[in-house]
Amino acid sequence: MNYGSPLHGSLRTASGRVWDNYVKHEFVTRMGDGTLPRDSFLHYLRQDYVYLIHYTRAWSLAVVKSKHIAEMRHFAEIGLALIDGEMRLHIETCARQGIDQDQLEATREEAENLAYTRFVTDAGLSGDLLDLLTALIPCAMGYGEIGVRLKSENPSLDNHPYAGWINTYCDDEYQSVCTAIGEVYELVAARTIGPDTTASPRWASLLNTYMTACRLETAFWSMGLRGKYSPAFADT
Amino acid sequence: MNYGSPLHGSLRTASGRVWDNYVKHEFVTRMGDGTLPRDSFLHYLRQDYVYLIHYTRAWSLAVVKSKHIAEMRHFAEIGLALIDGEMRLHIETCARQGIDQDQLEATREEAENLAYTRFVTDAGLSGDLLDLLTALIPCAMGYGEIGVRLKSENPSLDNHPYAGWINTYCDDEYQSVCTAIGEVYELVAARTIGPDTTASPRWASLLNTYMTACRLETAFWSMGLRGKYSPAFADT
Amino acid sequence: MNYGSPLHGSLRTASGRVWDNYVKHEFVTRMGDGTLPRDSFLHYLRQDYVYLIHYTRAWSLAVVKSKHIAEMRHFAEIGLALIDGEMRLHIETCARQGIDQDQLEATREEAENLAYTRFVTDAGLSGDLLDLLTALIPCAMGYGEIGVRLKSENPSLDNHPYAGWINTYCDDEYQSVCTAIGEVYELVAARTIGPDTTASPRWASLLNTYMTACRLETAFWSMGLRGKYSPAFADT
Amino acid sequence: MNYGSPLHGSLRTASGRVWDNYVKHEFVTRMGDGTLPRDSFLHYLRQDYVYLIHYTRAWSLAVVKSKHIAEMRHFAEIGLALIDGEMRLHIETCARQGIDQDQLEATREEAENLAYTRFVTDAGLSGDLLDLLTALIPCAMGYGEIGVRLKSENPSLDNHPYAGWINTYCDDEYQSVCTAIGEVYELVAARTIGPDTTASPRWASLLNTYMTACRLETAFWSMGLRGKYSPAFADT
Repeated sequence: MNYGSPLHGSLRTASGRVWDNYVKHEFVTRMGDGTLPRDSFLHYLRQDYVYLIHYTRAWSLAVVKSKHIAEMRHFAEIGLALIDGEMRLHIETCARQGIDQDQLEATREEAENLAYTRFVTDAGLSGDLLDLLTALIPCAMGYGEIGVRLKSENPSLDNHPYAGWINTYCDDEYQSVCTAIGEVYELVAARTIGPDTTASPRWASLLNTYMTACRLETAFWSMGLRGKYSPAFADT
Repeated sequence: MNYGSPLHGSLRTASGRVWDNYVKHEFVTRMGDGTLPRDSFLHYLRQDYVYLIHYTRAWSLAVVKSKHIAEMRHFAEIGLALIDGEMRLHIETCARQGIDQDQLEATREEAENLAYTRFVTDAGLSGDLLDLLTALIPCAMGYGEIGVRLKSENPSLDNHPYAGWINTYCDDEYQSVCTAIGEVYELVAARTIGPDTTASPRWASLLNTYMTACRLETAFWSMGLRGKYSPAFADT
Repeated sequence: MNYGSPLHGSLRTASGRVWDNYVKHEFVTRMGDGTLPRDSFLHYLRQDYVYLIHYTRAWSLAVVKSKHIAEMRHFAEIGLALIDGEMRLHIETCARQGIDQDQLEATREEAENLAYTRFVTDAGLSGDLLDLLTALIPCAMGYGEIGVRLKSENPSLDNHPYAGWINTYCDDEYQSVCTAIGEVYELVAARTIGPDTTASPRWASLLNTYMTACRLETAFWSMGLRGKYSPAFADT
Repeated sequence: MNYGSPLHGSLRTASGRVWDNYVKHEFVTRMGDGTLPRDSFLHYLRQDYVYLIHYTRAWSLAVVKSKHIAEMRHFAEIGLALIDGEMRLHIETCARQGIDQDQLEATREEAENLAYTRFVTDAGLSGDLLDLLTALIPCAMGYGEIGVRLKSENPSLDNHPYAGWINTYCDDEYQSVCTAIGEVYELVAARTIGPDTTASPRWASLLNTYMTACRLETAFWSMGLRGKYSPAFADT
């Protein structure tokens, strides 16, 4: 699934097993078949809430790194949609488990969480808009791809323990966000490296950024599956 | 007018003549009495359109520099409101003069424009959220204050050549944005330097940032009044 | 050991067990008694080489975030000293194991490594100079403290397998760097939050940054001890 | 003079009159023939001292935006050389006029000064290393070119009132810094946009950055020639 972006398609293909390790991680397959332990899901969800704060910061950094009004509006709207849309899933799901929003925000970030989000913001600090978007793409597109796949494996989500998650990401609204991101990614790539993206002198560096983001997604799922804090972050 | 922010009030008072030079600049008084030459207004308006692009970048940088969700939403909404609200005035006014949006975006930035907006983004790069907001406050609050004053001097704006500008900034919508900014500014100040702001070791530095922004506003009005490019930027 | 910085001393004390987990990690004690497996050390050393690249970037970001010439010179000198001094240990040690500098630079960064360095650069992007330095302090001071302790436990380092590492950090040169950093940290703290640092409204936030850096150090040692890539980063 | 960089050569040629306006500004020609008023020179020199602080910040930002060790060392050395080398000229010249270093550092920055340096740091924040270097190149190379020309016009600088300035920039040491910068600029360009730089989709944007920096240099000379503060910055 290219979501309107041949460059994302090329990077996804070139990443090969690294992409598959991410979108077919055990956490994902067990969420799909409903066998994922609740503690794993909640550990993931609380970390993902904090993740979304920094993910929103990263999309705002995309506004800072642009000067094209249509693009800036688009990035700003993604930022607001994250705050108001995706976060709602987390807040509501956690509320049903007795975890309120203040507790959510106070969640101690795990190393895997820090690694991913700070890698993304640093991609924006050290590189240009294309570098930053390349670090953001695997999360946006991968979740869309996973949402569609899990839904196709579960045509009826009645009584599915993870129906909320699956519906959020297979939903037309989220899917159209992916396509909109794919289109703006292509525009930025076209004016930065031109149409023949894999022949660009930046190809290897972009692929490295993309694959690192995929690996950090994989590590993030493993963190969720673990269902509890890593030793270095478990202290009280 | 403190717009809900005692810190803004203290900085405004401490700036004294520097604040007055800005909000009572000849450009402003002549906009108020309707004697401002049209060329001056259009030169200002085209530069201000480019200004708003970078001003939006700066508010997005405020999102990057925060991690409090309510604040982040607020800054992101200001960014979007700037793109969709204030810019509309510029686009419509210029359109009536035969200047379309592509031309507007292609406007060559003057030195005075570069100076102001890049000073603000650099305040965010070099400092923290409080430094960044302190560089942003004089523009937001000063325009609100000017809008109210010019309106009070012109109770009826029928046939006033600058009714559009005055209405934009004296409007309840803009005024409530100022108050909302004032409130968030206080929150950030409270958690950064505490309640006794003028006794903070950062007071002198904050005042310096604030006054520099005021001086850059003054220079921006003078650029408008000049009505044409400065020599260094006039080449073709 | 305060290295001339009461603020570092207060943060170190307040971190309690989190600090101890870092400076008395199994990796450290086994480096001290010479039982650390060579593979663990080499995995650590290669990652630490990449770490130093980003650590140097972070000290350069401190220059970007300052405007006091004496301070700027100091930060810039630390950056150069890291490139020319500490890295030498890594290059020479690895060379003896047949790993040349190109291979070192091409080392794939582990998640634990990404987490730490990008957390630090993001502390600089999101905060001010004091935030950035607070994220940098645990590494600088902790290594100094460990170097002194391991040396005191091994008065003679003849034939000690990790004599090179211990000598680098217990050395007067490195120790005086720690003291110089401590002194500049105090200066920055004094002009930012004043003398009563633990009463500052920023104390909790600074402590959080400091403790997160300590935890990331702990995770870094664990990464070394593992002696091989984590699953998410092990793919070829 | 390409100083080892064909890309700089292409940008310089494409800038045409904009480049000439900068390097042949009246301030420069009158410095060359010795008729520049002392007040103009001192106003320039004090502002240029503050300029160098931010110019050093910008070269440090280049370290932040790199991960190639040889390059990082080079940028860091330029930063230190600026602090220790060029600034010495300013400090010594001003000292002879009774202006000490504290006064120098306390100089209020003019709008033209803010415009230039903050434009450069923002080029680094919004773009990549190539964008940042492109904003830095006109200053570095233009001063080298001016130094050589003024020296060739004044083979003997005995009793020349601006011998100190001319010697600083025609000196072999400064000239070799220009060549070293030219070489690293080519390396960065090669890995970012490839060998055919003028055919890159980024050419127009790079040229725009370069020409803006030239115009800001021109405005900086005009500020010097004015010999006193602009109205907006003249208040006390």
